[in-house]
Amino acid sequence: MKKLTTLFLGTLLFMNNLFAQDQGKRFYKLPIYGKYFETSQQFHRVDTLKYNTMPASVKKLYTNSAGLFVTFKSNSSELYAKWCVTDKKVGLNLTAIANKGLDVYIKNRAGRWQYAGSKGTVKTCEDGLILEHLDSTEKEFLVYLPLYDETTSLEIGVEEGASFVELPNPFKRNIVVYGSSIVHGASASRPGMAYPALLSRRTGFNFLNFGVSGNARMEKEVVHMLGDINPDVFILDCVPNSSPEQVSERTVYLVSYLREKHPNTPIIMIPSVIRELSYFHQNWNNRNHLQNANWKTEYNKLIAKGGKALYYLDTSSLLGEDHEATTDGTHPSDLGFMRMVEQIEPFVLDVMKKHNIH
Amino acid sequence: MKKLTTLFLGTLLFMNNLFAQDQGKRFYKLPIYGKYFETSQQFHRVDTLKYNTMPASVKKLYTNSAGLFVTFKSNSSELYAKWCVTDKKVGLNLTAIANKGLDVYIKNRAGRWQYAGSKGTVKTCEDGLILEHLDSTEKEFLVYLPLYDETTSLEIGVEEGASFVELPNPFKRNIVVYGSSIVHGASASRPGMAYPALLSRRTGFNFLNFGVSGNARMEKEVVHMLGDINPDVFILDCVPNSSPEQVSERTVYLVSYLREKHPNTPIIMIPSVIRELSYFHQNWNNRNHLQNANWKTEYNKLIAKGGKALYYLDTSSLLGEDHEATTDGTHPSDLGFMRMVEQIEPFVLDVMKKHNIH
Repeated sequence: MKKLTTLFLGTLLFMNNLFAQDQGKRFYKLPIYGKYFETSQQFHRVDTLKYNTMPASVKKLYTNSAGLFVTFKSNSSELYAKWCVTDKKVGLNLTAIANKGLDVYIKNRAGRWQYAGSKGTVKTCEDGLILEHLDSTEKEFLVYLPLYDETTSLEIGVEEGASFVELPNPFKRNIVVYGSSIVHGASASRPGMAYPALLSRRTGFNFLNFGVSGNARMEKEVVHMLGDINPDVFILDCVPNSSPEQVSERTVYLVSYLREKHPNTPIIMIPSVIRELSYFHQNWNNRNHLQNANWKTEYNKLIAKGGKALYYLDTSSLLGEDHEATTDGTHPSDLGFMRMVEQIEPFVLDVMKKHNIH
Repeated sequence: MKKLTTLFLGTLLFMNNLFAQDQGKRFYKLPIYGKYFETSQQFHRVDTLKYNTMPASVKKLYTNSAGLFVTFKSNSSELYAKWCVTDKKVGLNLTAIANKGLDVYIKNRAGRWQYAGSKGTVKTCEDGLILEHLDSTEKEFLVYLPLYDETTSLEIGVEEGASFVELPNPFKRNIVVYGSSIVHGASASRPGMAYPALLSRRTGFNFLNFGVSGNARMEKEVVHMLGDINPDVFILDCVPNSSPEQVSERTVYLVSYLREKHPNTPIIMIPSVIRELSYFHQNWNNRNHLQNANWKTEYNKLIAKGGKALYYLDTSSLLGEDHEATTDGTHPSDLGFMRMVEQIEPFVLDVMKKHNIH
């Protein structure tokens, strides 16, 4: 009996904590956008059971929530979130906000998504206030999920009594961006600064983050997964981790397979950023230039064979000329991502215009 | 006897490890630049025993090695470093590179400092390879110390047999930058991107980092410490953490004290960045604008009283117009710091020109 009483009191105490914690707030689960596939694990970008033959590291990385977001409308003056990630350590070249945190935008009066706040964590489960002292007008919110971790749950909280309405994905069309850690988001300072997310907000188009850190070597199993997507544009930024030999051996298969499955979809090839460390690191210097030279050669071959709707972003420097735009010599900081976007955005928009994609 | 043998063998093993670790390398301690004062603790920016009456938090922060650097010449093809910091956790809005890491520049053929590599750590003591595969020409190196931690030791290593020569401080004159976390370096992605460091490399002048995160409230004891400096220019960026009332109450004392001690030294007042979170956070919105309005009012009063060599950087937005340039709504990312520098640099250079400071 004593045991039962303790259990009962314990339960009461637990419920009371739960109540106290959530007093005056109401939490919601929301549809997850920023991905193409329906996945059995809603916070995964790709169903890794379905695409089971992809390399283990690639499968693991597609469980990271890079590029995923939720969106809703509310007049709450405070915004809360509860979310869980894994116990993986924060990367040395990332902030805890980018790695495991949330990043919030609000649609401003000019109709543009404007940064409003972000919250980092090193905990497995975080529960906290994200924004406060908002005015009482109804506003549209967009919340980006962690870039470099698997999100396992997410609930958005507003004040009890505040309005709350789920919104559809505000970005139209689908543009797949397949690439390495740079697409994945290293070293953005927060989730919304990964370059596909930046492009979505700036253009209104839905750039989908298929970045896989340390990978994107055009493995056939990954190519086949990409071929199952039916987007409006493919952007291939998969040179950084492919050896010069892999670039020569695998590019034709990647592009031809996508072309066979999608005869009219524009495909844009982006060269690797020149790693800032490569200007002094002799091995990287040679390798980096050879990677890009081979990529361009494969493009030229494909064009010579009659390749249609295939485009190459010809640039000697995606990161500007002052050598200041990376965090670690390889990964763009927000400064680097902004410079990349300033080159990639007009190029992609031109291609889309040419193909009447609005 | 057995115990002694074990101890002896243990010691041998330890020495052997130490030898193996350093085999083929030679380590050097170097003079620390980037600070004005001689300090009994060489990695502190200010002698906190001498300026013992400053607020405890300010004293603690001046033990952080923000803005400090070493410089040398070597033809080594590899660069190593051993350094120790405290066991303080990495800040949520910082990378481990910025917080506890090293950031390396090499003087390029155009005579400009060019980023070469950086290394983050979460260890108290790190020992590792920083650069490799350098060509065998003799090069000038500049290594920035951790921004947000106390460095307790630093040794730079090169290959055994490589040349190694200490170099004098490459930056001329002294420009004191007194400010908050933003001057201190949050949220630069690496130590060399804090804005005083960026300004030094871009102009060749020695911008000294007197930033103290969460502080810089113009406390009299800190003002007196600043008055003991005899620089070529004072830059005051101390509005962000001062309440509007503190700005009104303390600015005249700060500026007048510095003027009294240094009758001819230009003093530049910089308004606070508009915190990105303030566009939606009603309290911050009011506070942020009031802080800057009061700062400008105090400037106007000082000018009206005949203030000489006093300048105000009049700008409505140090961070640009797209609201994307902070990591957490308050602290500039590298994107934000670059935008700040693009406004601060020409203003400061104009003032210096006017005062014949070359």
